[in-house]
Amino acid sequence: MGSGGSRGGGGLTTIGVDLGGTKIQAAGVDDGGVGAQRKRPTPDGGPEAVAGAIAALVEELGGADRLGVGTPGQVAGDRGVVVGSPNLAGWERPVPLGDLLRAGTGLERVAVGNDVNVATLAEQVAGAGRGHPDLLCVFLGTGVGGGLVLDGTLRTGARGLTGEIGHTTVHPGGRRCGCGLDGHTEAYAGRVAMEAEARRRHAAGEPTALVELAGDRKMKSGVFAKALAAADPVATSLLDEAVEAVSVAVASAVMLLDLDLVVLGGGVAEKLGPAFVDRIADAVRDRLFAGSSLEVVPAALGDHAGVVGAALLADTTG
Amino acid sequence: MGSGGSRGGGGLTTIGVDLGGTKIQAAGVDDGGVGAQRKRPTPDGGPEAVAGAIAALVEELGGADRLGVGTPGQVAGDRGVVVGSPNLAGWERPVPLGDLLRAGTGLERVAVGNDVNVATLAEQVAGAGRGHPDLLCVFLGTGVGGGLVLDGTLRTGARGLTGEIGHTTVHPGGRRCGCGLDGHTEAYAGRVAMEAEARRRHAAGEPTALVELAGDRKMKSGVFAKALAAADPVATSLLDEAVEAVSVAVASAVMLLDLDLVVLGGGVAEKLGPAFVDRIADAVRDRLFAGSSLEVVPAALGDHAGVVGAALLADTTG
Repeated sequence: MGSGGSRGGGGLTTIGVDLGGTKIQAAGVDDGGVGAQRKRPTPDGGPEAVAGAIAALVEELGGADRLGVGTPGQVAGDRGVVVGSPNLAGWERPVPLGDLLRAGTGLERVAVGNDVNVATLAEQVAGAGRGHPDLLCVFLGTGVGGGLVLDGTLRTGARGLTGEIGHTTVHPGGRRCGCGLDGHTEAYAGRVAMEAEARRRHAAGEPTALVELAGDRKMKSGVFAKALAAADPVATSLLDEAVEAVSVAVASAVMLLDLDLVVLGGGVAEKLGPAFVDRIADAVRDRLFAGSSLEVVPAALGDHAGVVGAALLADTTG
Repeated sequence: MGSGGSRGGGGLTTIGVDLGGTKIQAAGVDDGGVGAQRKRPTPDGGPEAVAGAIAALVEELGGADRLGVGTPGQVAGDRGVVVGSPNLAGWERPVPLGDLLRAGTGLERVAVGNDVNVATLAEQVAGAGRGHPDLLCVFLGTGVGGGLVLDGTLRTGARGLTGEIGHTTVHPGGRRCGCGLDGHTEAYAGRVAMEAEARRRHAAGEPTALVELAGDRKMKSGVFAKALAAADPVATSLLDEAVEAVSVAVASAVMLLDLDLVVLGGGVAEKLGPAFVDRIADAVRDRLFAGSSLEVVPAALGDHAGVVGAALLADTTG
């Protein structure tokens, strides 16, 4: 045991796992650094199959003393029960993922956290937030997610839902969000919502390179980047609205919590690059009191944030 | 020493002080309960005069082992330096209030906190939030203030500004706030902002009972209550806007922090009563996911929240 894992506190080894809708990534993580890695497709046989796949990845990596897993959905309770995880087939009911993994791996030290929350922990401990006890991370991708570390501790909240900045209201009575409520940040800044709005405008007689480039396929972040580079009017308008929505939501969070650092990550932020993050930073500062020392910076860990954060969660709670 | 104070943890006695723009209240506080009380007008001779008045109140109350003070403005650092306190004459520069009080009273155990933040602590420990580790308090009065207790600890934040829910954005590009930024909660739900808007509409040809009742005097909460009871259209419209603004801001805070309790206090909430709080509660729930267990309830401690919270701050940090 432990040869392929990593040396955490007290000489113990830790494996971090990032459970996604299409693939599972696992890695030995030592003091925030990523060692040996393995991945496999997410099985569609329900929770037991997923737990089995994770146990197999742990074995491939040579085992460990502690296991941390970041998962979509809410995580309730200390034993790691996953509720409301729409991206995983067969996970409609509460899944006792922590206990399934304890049984499957033989490890007792298993920690389960929300994927976005553990990625936030990773950025705070080992990424762009290092040295800052308080951190809001906002991840711009398919949707808009977020997480909070306050006074050095990952906040989960009453129901494990902390950080839902995508579902804070930026335009009361405004565009309908995928969640069914109106005017949320995600309705303006989530990739899926932006695609829907682009196709709606295209169909209504505002032709846009976004639809021409994407065709019937998914309108990926790269499509937005290309259309923006070509000064496509619809893409430009959608991006302006996204920047405003994110900046309103972030400025309100900063006012409420008196934060001095916000990290922006996710596929859209990565693809659009530092200039996009700087645009949001300027728009946020315009909404704060003069003299604010707030910094808004890009995430540093990219695709590794999930495995690193999961391992850190196991190190601090396992 | 200690006869007029109160028995806190370890048999120590504590006095809590609520420093306001017009009066200073002081009381012995024991386990969240208020004992002997004294008050006097806030002297306008600057920080030393205020510290002297507080020291005299402590002596009148028979002294204590610990002293806690809630003050307007931001409180920076562990020693209790007050910055940006516009309601107090001669406090334009940073005031080392903690050290002035240590010198004036001879006590070493002196804690200084923001008045709204300590009132939030009071509601969480001894008021409407008892038993809830997380609490957002929103105080609707002259302006809109707020405070946060998270995991049982009063949050202050990077610069002692936590809880500024009055300056979160509910209508981007909307009504100008007293702080100079646009679309803030306080611009719609603060009493001073509502008065300015009522007078503006009155002058623009929309006569309102609000101006008729208030005349040239301050438009107090009671004036709003009377005009609403008479179904005055401007008062009704202003209150609808205030309810929407507060509910948008509160719902966003609940989404961000996954809270299960919000307490509404302050003069406007007290004067308009439980029906007003219930209206806001309903409007907040309309902006949350189905199945939310959020409760929005009236504050329980009223005018005592300041002295109780200041004493509690001294008990926990002194």
